[in-house]
Amino acid sequence: MESLSLNIQKDDWKKEKHVPVIELKEPAKKGEPINIHLCVGKEIPHPNTPEHHIRWIKLFFQPDGEKFTIHLGTYMFEAHAESIEGPNKGSAKCEPCVHTSVILEKPGTLIALSYCNIHGLWENSLRVDFEN
Amino acid sequence: MESLSLNIQKDDWKKEKHVPVIELKEPAKKGEPINIHLCVGKEIPHPNTPEHHIRWIKLFFQPDGEKFTIHLGTYMFEAHAESIEGPNKGSAKCEPCVHTSVILEKPGTLIALSYCNIHGLWENSLRVDFEN
Amino acid sequence: MESLSLNIQKDDWKKEKHVPVIELKEPAKKGEPINIHLCVGKEIPHPNTPEHHIRWIKLFFQPDGEKFTIHLGTYMFEAHAESIEGPNKGSAKCEPCVHTSVILEKPGTLIALSYCNIHGLWENSLRVDFEN
Amino acid sequence: MESLSLNIQKDDWKKEKHVPVIELKEPAKKGEPINIHLCVGKEIPHPNTPEHHIRWIKLFFQPDGEKFTIHLGTYMFEAHAESIEGPNKGSAKCEPCVHTSVILEKPGTLIALSYCNIHGLWENSLRVDFEN
Ligand SMILES: [Fe+3]
Ligand SMILES: [Fe+3]
Ligand SMILES: [Fe+3]
Ligand SMILES: [Fe+3]
Repeated sequence: MESLSLNIQKDDWKKEKHVPVIELKEPAKKGEPINIHLCVGKEIPHPNTPEHHIRWIKLFFQPDGEKFTIHLGTYMFEAHAESIEGPNKGSAKCEPCVHTSVILEKPGTLIALSYCNIHGLWENSLRVDFEN
Repeated sequence: MESLSLNIQKDDWKKEKHVPVIELKEPAKKGEPINIHLCVGKEIPHPNTPEHHIRWIKLFFQPDGEKFTIHLGTYMFEAHAESIEGPNKGSAKCEPCVHTSVILEKPGTLIALSYCNIHGLWENSLRVDFEN
Repeated sequence: MESLSLNIQKDDWKKEKHVPVIELKEPAKKGEPINIHLCVGKEIPHPNTPEHHIRWIKLFFQPDGEKFTIHLGTYMFEAHAESIEGPNKGSAKCEPCVHTSVILEKPGTLIALSYCNIHGLWENSLRVDFEN
Repeated sequence: MESLSLNIQKDDWKKEKHVPVIELKEPAKKGEPINIHLCVGKEIPHPNTPEHHIRWIKLFFQPDGEKFTIHLGTYMFEAHAESIEGPNKGSAKCEPCVHTSVILEKPGTLIALSYCNIHGLWENSLRVDFEN
């Protein structure tokens, strides 16, 4: 049976512009808000046109010792300079980056999944341990 | 490195209520609308409460001979009888099933990914070949 | 203050291809699944290209006598024949139509909101009364 | 005909915890990335439980002199401490706040729409003018 697992691509985000980067700017603490930066194309910008763009990033969390994965959030980038005057003439486009904030009760692994409308699914992960 | 692949669960949908079922009611034809039924809990209904419910199903397509996976659609089930009068007293809830329609130019594999807010990620797939 | 209300467009769906149609194929019954058909472009098809397409339909419900609106679901149409070989050469696209199923405990009004990536927001509504 | 416009609530975000706040931390410049902060419950925190939480914020832009509204992004908050061990025992929850970045070619009005799963739809707006 076919599986999505076979189709999720991985690579080094410094070389491959599709890979979502996950960053924490401060040490994570149990039960306190943790700021998470998610970005596609941080080192090498990805195109952002109606024909080729990053559509979304999803963030998951796998707590240590738990069986089930938790879906934390979805961040959708909907504007890519589309316009009634033609592609790339629109008045707005979004950058495929967000900062969000989560509260974790256990250490574990953050996993980001992103989607390019022509280059498919890409993932990355970041280990989160609490400072004592 | 941790991967989402390790966290996507599979099982027999007739025994396991979380597995999304993908069904075509008619033979698929190249370049013509294909009706796709997606349902979680078709054989064994899944609970639908604020505390435990199916949040979404996503549909992907892997065309034969192509490298990248295509995201066809996301179907979100947002109401679970939440209410200001307390959980399960709300006036509306949705069933985790949709019919949608897509046009495919190549044979390939449909992949559905679903999410239970406490039992995580589940997938299933269906081979699509065109009738001649 | 600017309001989204000023920007949501209405029209006759038989004349204006952006307006979402809401249809029930059978009488609605209290507490039983109600099949709802949602479609944009039912009478006059809307283009479906990377540059111009229907991105999503959202479905809401306003129960009679309640203050707050309930969000029932979001249905996203993600593939529009994008491809690494150029726009409109892709192997898949979706049609902006879904059937979904909800359980309602009160009569009220269904409201559909749809979005075209260059022609903005459009809405329609349908009164739901239960057969006795 | 019923309209979503009748159901979108407005209020002072310093007094009403459901109202999304839109903030720019720096002057906006034409054609350059603008950092936008979106937050629900900034002054008075909103509950975050499986039974009562902020589900999403959507961001729109109405460019001056244009007819159609542009959908910039959707930010979904999916984890609210749900758990197989019971509500509010889960290992993760998200805060209903994001920072995102957009590039605008015209001045106009940003509009945020947020949704509480039991208190419905709320909106706010922010005028964006470019510094010269
Ligand atoms: Fe790409
Ligand atoms: Fe479950
Ligand atoms: Fe249009
Ligand atoms: Fe609330």
